[in-house]
Amino acid sequence: MTDCLGDGAGDMTPMDLYEKLTSQGDTVRTLKTEKAAKADIDAAVQLLLKLKVDYKQVTGQDYKTGCPPSECVVSQDNGPAADGEDMVDPWNVSTTNAKGVDYDKLIVRFGSSKIDQELVDRIERVSGQKAHRFLRRGIFFSHRDMHQVLDAYEKNKSFYLYTGRGPSSDALHMGHLIPFIFTKWLQDTFDIPLVIQLTDDEKYLWKDLSLEDCHRYTMENAKDIIACGFDINKTFIFSDLDYMGASPDFYRNVVKVQKHVTFNQVKGIFGFGDSDCIGKIAFPAIQAAPSFSSSFPQIFKGRKDVQCLIPCAIDQDPYFRMTRDVAPRIGYPKPALLHSTFFPALQGAQTKMSASDANSSIFLTDTPKQIKNKVNKHAFSGGKDTVEEHRKYGGNPDVDVSFMYLTFFLEDDEQLEKIRQDYASGALLTGELKKRLIETLQPMITSHQERRKQVTEETVKQFMTPRPLNYSF
Amino acid sequence: MTDCLGDGAGDMTPMDLYEKLTSQGDTVRTLKTEKAAKADIDAAVQLLLKLKVDYKQVTGQDYKTGCPPSECVVSQDNGPAADGEDMVDPWNVSTTNAKGVDYDKLIVRFGSSKIDQELVDRIERVSGQKAHRFLRRGIFFSHRDMHQVLDAYEKNKSFYLYTGRGPSSDALHMGHLIPFIFTKWLQDTFDIPLVIQLTDDEKYLWKDLSLEDCHRYTMENAKDIIACGFDINKTFIFSDLDYMGASPDFYRNVVKVQKHVTFNQVKGIFGFGDSDCIGKIAFPAIQAAPSFSSSFPQIFKGRKDVQCLIPCAIDQDPYFRMTRDVAPRIGYPKPALLHSTFFPALQGAQTKMSASDANSSIFLTDTPKQIKNKVNKHAFSGGKDTVEEHRKYGGNPDVDVSFMYLTFFLEDDEQLEKIRQDYASGALLTGELKKRLIETLQPMITSHQERRKQVTEETVKQFMTPRPLNYSF
Repeated sequence: MTDCLGDGAGDMTPMDLYEKLTSQGDTVRTLKTEKAAKADIDAAVQLLLKLKVDYKQVTGQDYKTGCPPSECVVSQDNGPAADGEDMVDPWNVSTTNAKGVDYDKLIVRFGSSKIDQELVDRIERVSGQKAHRFLRRGIFFSHRDMHQVLDAYEKNKSFYLYTGRGPSSDALHMGHLIPFIFTKWLQDTFDIPLVIQLTDDEKYLWKDLSLEDCHRYTMENAKDIIACGFDINKTFIFSDLDYMGASPDFYRNVVKVQKHVTFNQVKGIFGFGDSDCIGKIAFPAIQAAPSFSSSFPQIFKGRKDVQCLIPCAIDQDPYFRMTRDVAPRIGYPKPALLHSTFFPALQGAQTKMSASDANSSIFLTDTPKQIKNKVNKHAFSGGKDTVEEHRKYGGNPDVDVSFMYLTFFLEDDEQLEKIRQDYASGALLTGELKKRLIETLQPMITSHQERRKQVTEETVKQFMTPRPLNYSF
Repeated sequence: MTDCLGDGAGDMTPMDLYEKLTSQGDTVRTLKTEKAAKADIDAAVQLLLKLKVDYKQVTGQDYKTGCPPSECVVSQDNGPAADGEDMVDPWNVSTTNAKGVDYDKLIVRFGSSKIDQELVDRIERVSGQKAHRFLRRGIFFSHRDMHQVLDAYEKNKSFYLYTGRGPSSDALHMGHLIPFIFTKWLQDTFDIPLVIQLTDDEKYLWKDLSLEDCHRYTMENAKDIIACGFDINKTFIFSDLDYMGASPDFYRNVVKVQKHVTFNQVKGIFGFGDSDCIGKIAFPAIQAAPSFSSSFPQIFKGRKDVQCLIPCAIDQDPYFRMTRDVAPRIGYPKPALLHSTFFPALQGAQTKMSASDANSSIFLTDTPKQIKNKVNKHAFSGGKDTVEEHRKYGGNPDVDVSFMYLTFFLEDDEQLEKIRQDYASGALLTGELKKRLIETLQPMITSHQERRKQVTEETVKQFMTPRPLNYSF
């Protein structure tokens, strides 16, 4: 799993993009001439279209074959075009909209389904529990096959959960908790087993880090994940570097996926190029394999038909589109998905959270004082410039980061709605809104820190030992 | 490890080759424009040149940009060109010469070193043993860094052996035994540990076989390998499918190699294309990893500096050129190599041995009668058409497959030389030469079959259990 906010296409020069486009055009032509598989051609065309959009965004011009940007572009503007699409893949998330990525458009582009009120109601009905605030508020907004999961569950055919994280640093921020908070709720609500993949191999392949560093981050990150309160009897957390070498069945599934995905496909889905290392090219199979219950014979006793449900941020969907494409060809059920929106940076929903910029987010290691300072100093405000104007015209909660954070963490729907109305009307000032957020975050983070302190090395070892889990199906 | 004789470039149509060439030309240009790493450019250029040779061989014409074969080739001749180079890579070995591949040219092309008399003498001196007939007769003809291995050995710095096989069928033929016969001699002579990799994952990726079939072939092939007489206290045989899932250290080395090899490189070295599955693309790292002693902590107690020596057929060299390129960049010593020539098919050194053609080779399961029939009926003869002519002009041992086989298996140098002279002079008739071969092969195969029968499942299990080995360094 990768962090949801990385480097954007904006880092490429117009010439880089031009060459990538030209070569991708060749690829598409070659595939068509060779009468390649439809999936390969589609994937290549998809990448070509994406590159054309990027090209227009960077150069302000349409791409023209045989006409490099230096010769054709009169005035070059590196700023993003007003009509540029949001960019969302496992390494790139960028948007120009202060409200953040347009998620409805993303659903259409990715071909997933919206989590509508009907589905939320159904989850409540089937589970007998009130829907989690992430569902009530559209933070988990998109899904694949969730109705099918519920159909089966109603017929006593249960499922398991799979989520994960790429452990690239010791310091987790609040955004990293979103999938885990929600996954814990799903585990408690449906009483089902859970596997959590920590992709230390991926981080080693993508970053300038040693294997030892990546593995150390894994062990540290595992403590934060355990501190979210997962049931030790129902949860298996694993490091790829360790579990690959501990489970012939996991490796067998990795190889099965690797046999059924071509370079053309990963090129189209992930944008890999010829200069990428072969480890990156093969990695998607490793993120795919935990979607199949036979990767965990110690848990599922060799059953290969247990349905998997993956709660994750929407940027991880490309991995699982690939997985769902492969699954029936290797005799496994397709995993179902629940997709979340992105957690915004303090500076606003269109900027990047960066582990190297301590002020871009609230970290799980921040003190109450640091939290207070960060929110007061850095949280982008939708308020007006002066108290007088604010009272008169009201603030804009849709772009206000403090309000956005409250939608993630304030449990009480009525309180949240009152805050929204008061802020929009001008009755609530920015300072007051920030105070509400600070008062919500401080005890949350403090108690996370306390729970994390109680996670011993022994507990980590227990969670990470391949073993049977307790479940009733 | 792959079989040494597979499908050649001759299977591609001129149009296939033309398109591959055009796209490869684009790749080279793009790499140069992008100022890519020298290794990447070199690899791409190497593939381009190889494709041009293939193109000329298939069409009889030089490749011309923008000029597809259908428009440019007046008379199309699918036969190989007289000046075509031998083709040697892990999946393709082809030559037009009845004497077989020109191995001196191959040494120049691959940049390895000839095993000359001086090196043979030195091996005898250092080991205190008479050189194996494969060394005396140039069957192991090429090496990398063997002098360095001997320098270190003389200073009491020992080494370990690594060889392997791709288990694609139950039926091994005599050619498959060559590396194992020689490796056993090296193990006995230098008293050192040995690891044998059975690449069942590779066979699954390349062939239309199930994982279960590939693993079953592995277990069957292991019995034939064990029957060669390896010391159970010094030998570890492993299936990739099993060992990958049993050794986190092995997987760590695989990922290290995968991080340091790009798609451009494997494209250049192995000719992989965009339509190949990502498993093939990543596989070379799995064949590379056993070259590093840290892949076997149970044997080398965590030492990562034990030198590796790899006896293998020359077609496997591309894997280890890649490995030697990566080794210093990940802090490991480069493996040394000893390369063998190919074992000829019964029909002659320029034809393919094929597992699907029972008459192309002597199988380890053949009965004495089958051996007799195959040699008499199918072994290509260098003799003359009539006894009279043969007596008058003599036979040609250089193209005679029976004589070639005797150079592999008849231990006595003087007898072999006498046979050569008598055959060349016409004193020895083809039937008599074949009789000598039959008398050599029958007891060899029969005793192999007897030894194999004694290999129990329990013995296989012992050889294949990761465990410490006995050695004195």
